[in-house]
Amino acid sequence: MQLFYAPDALDNNVLDQTNSQHCIKVLRKKIGDVVHLVDGKGNFFEVELKNEHPKKCEFNILSQRKESARNRRVHIAVAPTKNNNRIEWFVEKAVEIGVDEISFIKTNNSERKHFSVDRVEKIAISAMKQSLKATLPILNPLVDFETFLSENQKNDAEKFVAHLHVDSTDLTKHSDATNCIILIGPEGDFSDQEVQQAVEQNFHMVSLGNSRLRTETAALVACTLLNANE
Amino acid sequence: MQLFYAPDALDNNVLDQTNSQHCIKVLRKKIGDVVHLVDGKGNFFEVELKNEHPKKCEFNILSQRKESARNRRVHIAVAPTKNNNRIEWFVEKAVEIGVDEISFIKTNNSERKHFSVDRVEKIAISAMKQSLKATLPILNPLVDFETFLSENQKNDAEKFVAHLHVDSTDLTKHSDATNCIILIGPEGDFSDQEVQQAVEQNFHMVSLGNSRLRTETAALVACTLLNANE
Repeated sequence: MQLFYAPDALDNNVLDQTNSQHCIKVLRKKIGDVVHLVDGKGNFFEVELKNEHPKKCEFNILSQRKESARNRRVHIAVAPTKNNNRIEWFVEKAVEIGVDEISFIKTNNSERKHFSVDRVEKIAISAMKQSLKATLPILNPLVDFETFLSENQKNDAEKFVAHLHVDSTDLTKHSDATNCIILIGPEGDFSDQEVQQAVEQNFHMVSLGNSRLRTETAALVACTLLNANE
Repeated sequence: MQLFYAPDALDNNVLDQTNSQHCIKVLRKKIGDVVHLVDGKGNFFEVELKNEHPKKCEFNILSQRKESARNRRVHIAVAPTKNNNRIEWFVEKAVEIGVDEISFIKTNNSERKHFSVDRVEKIAISAMKQSLKATLPILNPLVDFETFLSENQKNDAEKFVAHLHVDSTDLTKHSDATNCIILIGPEGDFSDQEVQQAVEQNFHMVSLGNSRLRTETAALVACTLLNANE
């Protein structure tokens, strides 16, 4: 099924330029044709095209339904990889598997100091449509590790920091949290000081298994395990 | 840590051309330098270079240790994706996370009729070294789905077929198997007939969650869950 993305579908019955063009020019849809939209806010729509405008195609909503609620809220905070493809790949796969919020963090050992959320948002939209979901995860711009911790100080989610340490428990042992945040370090891992700061802010040290994983793999393993343990 | 790959290290104390060149020309290692090798068969070696030959660099083994045994044997049989990058990505990530054998299968809805294992073997070797493992998974060439089933008829592994079906149980419920095979379908999914054939050969229908996953994502989710439920 082909899904179009119309973030303001409830307020404004018109497709944006990209979606209009794809609908009218590429797929050659006609007035009266029925197509399906999502708004990235959890709503699916069945709509009828009111015109064939290639830039501002209007529609009437025929029906609407809410996406099923997820059993667990998953928020992943990850240090972007040096290689852009790797973190973009993570975003695509995480959206497919299920993620509610992704934060990008700048850590002591981060090689990336700048990161554009706009690019990954396009990837997230495409993955959402491809996997027939109606909710776009919140994508937060790059912030310092300490800023992230202080911004989430009052967040009542269960908090985890992925770290290979003798005191780390297996993430799969924490299967009762309905709302969680997990921190995933950069290629050079978190510094001891950062882990300490996280622990002081009530993050539990957790292990993702025995393998040495790349940043984006660790983030995806965490995403998979947190979705499976619902 | 830099690892070199020498599949015949126990019989033949010499690096192949690629590894010799990397060791001598790129990393500029000298006679007497100590480097680390894996043989892809579960052995790590500490060796001393006997010469600086850029094509056939010889070494003496100083010490050797076995990789820790895995708690569960994981064999994933997957239909290669139309886009080569996607299946190559799966192989890289599966090796990082942990996999013992990967089979490539040609199904009714497969778009790929040919598939080169040589290319993915290079990726697997690189991922093995990068994740500091010493065992290369067995990589089997593309065979017909039916051939795969008949070849594994007497395999006493716990067998699963990933399929979205009302009778499918969650893969995470099968956490006691120490040796398992899972079948992952192509972009167009397995045909009903194929699922039926698999069920007749004692494959259990399992679900990988509620999301519609691409082939390579489904294969990686299966790999992650089978590694986590040890």
